[in-house]
Amino acid sequence: MSEQKKKLVEAITPINEDFTQWYTDVCVKAELVDYSSVKGCMILRPYGCAIWENIQHILDGMFKATGHENVAMPIFIPESLLQKEKDHVEGFAPEVAWVTHGGLEELEERLCVRPTSETLFCDHFAHVLHSWRDLPMKYNQWCSVVRWEKTTRPFLRSREFWWQEGHTIHETAEEAVAETRQQLETYAEFCEKYLMIPVVKGQKTDKEKFAGAEATYSIEAMMHDGKALQSGTSHYFGDGFSRAFGVQFAGRDNQLQYPHQTSWGVSTRLVGAIIMTHGDDEGLILPPAVAPYQVVVVPVAAHKPGVAEKAAEVAGRISGFARVKLDGSDNSPGWKFSQWEMKGVPLRLELGPRDIEKNQCVLVRRDTREKAFVSLDELDTAIPKMLNELAQSLYQKALANREARTWAATDFEEVKRLASEKSGYIKTMWCGELACEEKMKEEAGLSSRCIPFVQERLGDTCPCCGRPAKKTVYWGKAY
Amino acid sequence: MSEQKKKLVEAITPINEDFTQWYTDVCVKAELVDYSSVKGCMILRPYGCAIWENIQHILDGMFKATGHENVAMPIFIPESLLQKEKDHVEGFAPEVAWVTHGGLEELEERLCVRPTSETLFCDHFAHVLHSWRDLPMKYNQWCSVVRWEKTTRPFLRSREFWWQEGHTIHETAEEAVAETRQQLETYAEFCEKYLMIPVVKGQKTDKEKFAGAEATYSIEAMMHDGKALQSGTSHYFGDGFSRAFGVQFAGRDNQLQYPHQTSWGVSTRLVGAIIMTHGDDEGLILPPAVAPYQVVVVPVAAHKPGVAEKAAEVAGRISGFARVKLDGSDNSPGWKFSQWEMKGVPLRLELGPRDIEKNQCVLVRRDTREKAFVSLDELDTAIPKMLNELAQSLYQKALANREARTWAATDFEEVKRLASEKSGYIKTMWCGELACEEKMKEEAGLSSRCIPFVQERLGDTCPCCGRPAKKTVYWGKAY
Repeated sequence: MSEQKKKLVEAITPINEDFTQWYTDVCVKAELVDYSSVKGCMILRPYGCAIWENIQHILDGMFKATGHENVAMPIFIPESLLQKEKDHVEGFAPEVAWVTHGGLEELEERLCVRPTSETLFCDHFAHVLHSWRDLPMKYNQWCSVVRWEKTTRPFLRSREFWWQEGHTIHETAEEAVAETRQQLETYAEFCEKYLMIPVVKGQKTDKEKFAGAEATYSIEAMMHDGKALQSGTSHYFGDGFSRAFGVQFAGRDNQLQYPHQTSWGVSTRLVGAIIMTHGDDEGLILPPAVAPYQVVVVPVAAHKPGVAEKAAEVAGRISGFARVKLDGSDNSPGWKFSQWEMKGVPLRLELGPRDIEKNQCVLVRRDTREKAFVSLDELDTAIPKMLNELAQSLYQKALANREARTWAATDFEEVKRLASEKSGYIKTMWCGELACEEKMKEEAGLSSRCIPFVQERLGDTCPCCGRPAKKTVYWGKAY
Repeated sequence: MSEQKKKLVEAITPINEDFTQWYTDVCVKAELVDYSSVKGCMILRPYGCAIWENIQHILDGMFKATGHENVAMPIFIPESLLQKEKDHVEGFAPEVAWVTHGGLEELEERLCVRPTSETLFCDHFAHVLHSWRDLPMKYNQWCSVVRWEKTTRPFLRSREFWWQEGHTIHETAEEAVAETRQQLETYAEFCEKYLMIPVVKGQKTDKEKFAGAEATYSIEAMMHDGKALQSGTSHYFGDGFSRAFGVQFAGRDNQLQYPHQTSWGVSTRLVGAIIMTHGDDEGLILPPAVAPYQVVVVPVAAHKPGVAEKAAEVAGRISGFARVKLDGSDNSPGWKFSQWEMKGVPLRLELGPRDIEKNQCVLVRRDTREKAFVSLDELDTAIPKMLNELAQSLYQKALANREARTWAATDFEEVKRLASEKSGYIKTMWCGELACEEKMKEEAGLSSRCIPFVQERLGDTCPCCGRPAKKTVYWGKAY
């Protein structure tokens, strides 16, 4: 290892020594984010932004394939509009930013910078919905929202973050529930197939559901350190918002009716999930589907005749089937290896004079460091195959981590012991009472992650109160 | 014409009767926008949003092809940061929205919602720029910005609008000037090749340049009514902002230097330009490159056996080479024709039982209403050809309008006469003095549009003051 490489690698805190510091180091040194002059707001640098753009591109295609259309709503919500739905305003008013002046004048009514846009969508639906023939309306928007958080961390919790928010209205409750569930499945599929992050799908308890929702569903991912990250949510509102905002339509029976509503969202938090699920001591490891570069070509002994040219030719060929970066800078190969490992590029292609003589190159997997000598004539099959193998490995490794860190418990002493000794999911039965959920939090430091769709029978009683149990619940510590 | 169709068409004000009202009618009835509860902020509805997405997609590809990378900067600017560059703050402070409270607490320092992001980019550049090897940094972001305008109109002037803002820094002034000009050329190419809107490229006078810029270049388009619309701008800043924000790098000579900077932007205003350049009494006419649907398939006598099926099959085939919408709703064909004309879909494909017998269909151009009978086996060549012909016609028609409405004047009486009798561009020589520019405004109601890159010699003296002239200037009334 060259001195330069050592220096760069030493600059990251080892992942198992201080995971929090490791995470911050990776965010900064992989050039994903910069801190801004606005406390709690982050800057997405080109590399971080490119990951988010790839996420957007895939998800947007999935949304459109299921009949959703994009719209753009205002950035501001008048205070009176935010207040129309009681539970919603209680949930959000304490954490919004308020605009009080426009230009040199004080506003007659304060405007908040949207923390989420249910109220704006309802206001719009009330204008444009007339008849059952207009339904369903299935809208989505890509934007940033603002929530005045006290403690912030890049991607995980910041005062401004980027996301998509889907908002739909339907003729019947059944259709709206089906939409809510379908969008949760879309998120799960996206996480598992593209981000290679296994998730648990389930329903939030009443305590944890969205302000104003009848039901909230979520996907929960487990990070490297065993903590949970809620990675996407989908809400069913019934007709509560419709009634609060006077959204009505003439039904098939010519009577005025209230539509049933959903909303669902994922955010730049997914980038945090990628970092904390797949990363290692060398830095980031990116799932190929969203990696800005899937392959980095590093010429070795680039000053020797023909090497730079051949590297450029090979990179050009790869660009036909993969996202490729040719690193033709005058840094040493060792420094480049280290830099692109930090940035998590899935495959490195090394090409030196002796390789060229043999019409081959070296392909190195970022996750396992496995090296393969590959003929330059077979790159178009070898690279996609290796990318796919790497992706599957990432998924399996993350799944193995989750399985190794998931424990079942049937009595409260066991819950407390596991919670203090281990980090991961603890599954238990639950009676359904808020008091027991609060006891889990106060005495074991655990919050309910979800009531998983896949229910198991772990016993008959709630470990907190001993009464008959209704559901299995996943508990954990969460970001 | 069916009753239904008449009714729909009559609902738009004729274009030459009241252009302003016609414009508003089209924005609303083509379902591009909705008004929101936030005064002066608009909602982009699915159809309007899809046009903007197509614009974004093409431009983003052009930016990336010239080495620009996307980033995302915060939505807020601390007051102290906005104030660092004197001219800039004077230009923008009177029209920004101020956030004074976060959650339940008053902020120590006010934050403005970004009206443009030069200050944020400079702050970031100061963090991440170290050496000449880091240059150029060529960044862009897609976002919305807020300017507290007093009078607003959809797309043309609203308190919030969507845009892209490019921000670059360079080692030398020459490179920065070249970037500024290159990006203006990109805008001009985009308008002319994709939006089919001819533009005049030129430099803004000192009076009209951007707050804090050394030079501002713009593209100016002429609308149907002869008024000008500034459709894109590109600014050269020299090192003024770098000095104000302490952005420095170690040069090739190892001395600290200030980089030279540019910024450039186009916005949802371009949608307004499309409407006002190409539209007619029936509504919108969309250039094919950005039309959400390039072809609408309308089955005729759809209840007859086989018609609906054949229409679906034909639409499916077209989807392989064009964006197509099958209107299978139970509205009458006449109503559908009218609706899709209002929405400006470039080509309508009519298909009825007799057409099917003959293995043909009717293709109708939105702009000329020309009908062509086309074999169903030739759609993959006929449709792209007709779309291209329509696009070229739109451009030629817009160019002819501009040429017919451009007058040269050499004395001030003639300027005043033309300004009162005609609507369009008036070109004159100009001495370069602010006093004469102000006289044009006060006495003839004209603002300088630009000093065109293509200079003509219309005389030797300034028509305002009679002194020696330096430049040709385009003057006009503008949106």
